[in-house]
Amino acid sequence: VTEDARIALVERVLGGRGESVRVGIGDDAAVVDLSGAVACSVDVLVEEVHFRRNWLTMADLGYRGIMTALSDLAAMGAEPRGVLSSLVLPPWLDDGQLEQLLQGQAEACEACGTSVIGGNLARGTELSMTTAVFGPSSAPIVRSGARPDDLLWLSGPVGLAAVGRRALDDGEGGHDVAKAAWRRPRARIAEGLALVGQAHAAIDISDGLALDAARLALASGVALVLQTDALGQAVPLADALYGGEDYALLAAAPADAAPAGFVQVGHCEAGEGVWLLSDAGREAVDIRGWDHFAGHGTGG
Amino acid sequence: VTEDARIALVERVLGGRGESVRVGIGDDAAVVDLSGAVACSVDVLVEEVHFRRNWLTMADLGYRGIMTALSDLAAMGAEPRGVLSSLVLPPWLDDGQLEQLLQGQAEACEACGTSVIGGNLARGTELSMTTAVFGPSSAPIVRSGARPDDLLWLSGPVGLAAVGRRALDDGEGGHDVAKAAWRRPRARIAEGLALVGQAHAAIDISDGLALDAARLALASGVALVLQTDALGQAVPLADALYGGEDYALLAAAPADAAPAGFVQVGHCEAGEGVWLLSDAGREAVDIRGWDHFAGHGTGG
Repeated sequence: VTEDARIALVERVLGGRGESVRVGIGDDAAVVDLSGAVACSVDVLVEEVHFRRNWLTMADLGYRGIMTALSDLAAMGAEPRGVLSSLVLPPWLDDGQLEQLLQGQAEACEACGTSVIGGNLARGTELSMTTAVFGPSSAPIVRSGARPDDLLWLSGPVGLAAVGRRALDDGEGGHDVAKAAWRRPRARIAEGLALVGQAHAAIDISDGLALDAARLALASGVALVLQTDALGQAVPLADALYGGEDYALLAAAPADAAPAGFVQVGHCEAGEGVWLLSDAGREAVDIRGWDHFAGHGTGG
Repeated sequence: VTEDARIALVERVLGGRGESVRVGIGDDAAVVDLSGAVACSVDVLVEEVHFRRNWLTMADLGYRGIMTALSDLAAMGAEPRGVLSSLVLPPWLDDGQLEQLLQGQAEACEACGTSVIGGNLARGTELSMTTAVFGPSSAPIVRSGARPDDLLWLSGPVGLAAVGRRALDDGEGGHDVAKAAWRRPRARIAEGLALVGQAHAAIDISDGLALDAARLALASGVALVLQTDALGQAVPLADALYGGEDYALLAAAPADAAPAGFVQVGHCEAGEGVWLLSDAGREAVDIRGWDHFAGHGTGG
């Protein structure tokens, strides 16, 4: 039975698991020990929508799919405790490629201290990778908690992945660091945990700083003011604002919080929308994301 | 922003939620109160693999996708506490169709006492619906616990959905009950809970009684003997054995258990494989499922 043989392959590559897993891959459902509040989220990567096959290896794809899903837990200040992976596999994908994809998943899970504990395999015409993640979240950091006197904090660069994605799309050489930023994003689990008890609100930057900041501003009923110079000059400002897929975290926290791994990039105030502050003055940020119905970071 | 507008639609249709949900649709992750052991599973329906568009309404599809996923919790003796829904939507699907799909999801969730608490929307060329489910499972019923002196118990008919699916595929009229069995399967949550503390092993029949019984036999290291006359005569024996997608539960439990909602259909014994017992004698069941790499009930 091909299906059962492939599940055996999944079990072989992903089978190692944590102490809290009571039932792992291969039964009707996985069972994990949890207690209290649990954060959970699901994300998908679809071929030709979120990636092209010549942009990355199968291992990169597996790695990327896990990290983009785990980033939602990071943004809640939650700790991952398990991953469910549902793969839709087209006929061209052979067992060697599947194994590479699984190894990429395993690598990403290991980097974040978690593991794939269950999942599903199905065939289809387009390759897609749906990843559900969950873990304890005793004090979830929602989008709606920012206050007018909070400062804005950002973990990691924004716009670099967009530069890498464009170079991959154009078939350009070079840009190795940017390409790696797109192929192998990192869910900022430790940074998210550092926000717990410190930040009033947080979101991960999957659709671009402008759009995700606007979501936080709207949910919290405040205005967000970004300092242009704090966004860095490593990439064009347009990429920093509209390039998604970096999975940096944006947080609103009091001035005395200074969460570990974050730099201050602006502040909140009474009002609405997202604003850019530079030597030239202050202007409203036009809110658009890289591709609005592409399904990145749509919540939950 | 189309994506955010569609998420608002999701929130409007699916937004009602249970007391244990601390953060629902629309944030980076959902947060739910849980405690102890938690069962989780994921399942997918892909157009042209698991269904054709003219076989069912969008509401049926939403209903079916939720139930097939929840059936894995039923098979563990777990109670659903939340659902994550990841939809890949092709360009032809309009908001009215999406709303019908969501309403079907809501109806199925309500029937099982749970709700969609988060999810993801993405575009793609083929319609797919990935559903992750979880809930408390203090005493999970695994596949591997059957003992040689257990009896075999079955909840509900097997083969009926296969008759319905074939009628839909052939464009035949009539067969309304069978078509409904395929379009609107029921996750046997109450029956699964009735197994807790009674059954030694259980599995849901998604790929056909023969194949799923073989999985239970292999995992438990026993032989399973089915009585032909106990499988009923409502459908041909081949459909009862090889027709999947009924989502009945098969359980191994002691003779004095008699779990509510189940009828006895055979027994376990030392040995291996699946056997059929009739007046004509005893024969080995040829193990094949309806479509081995179609991704039904592949565990976890």
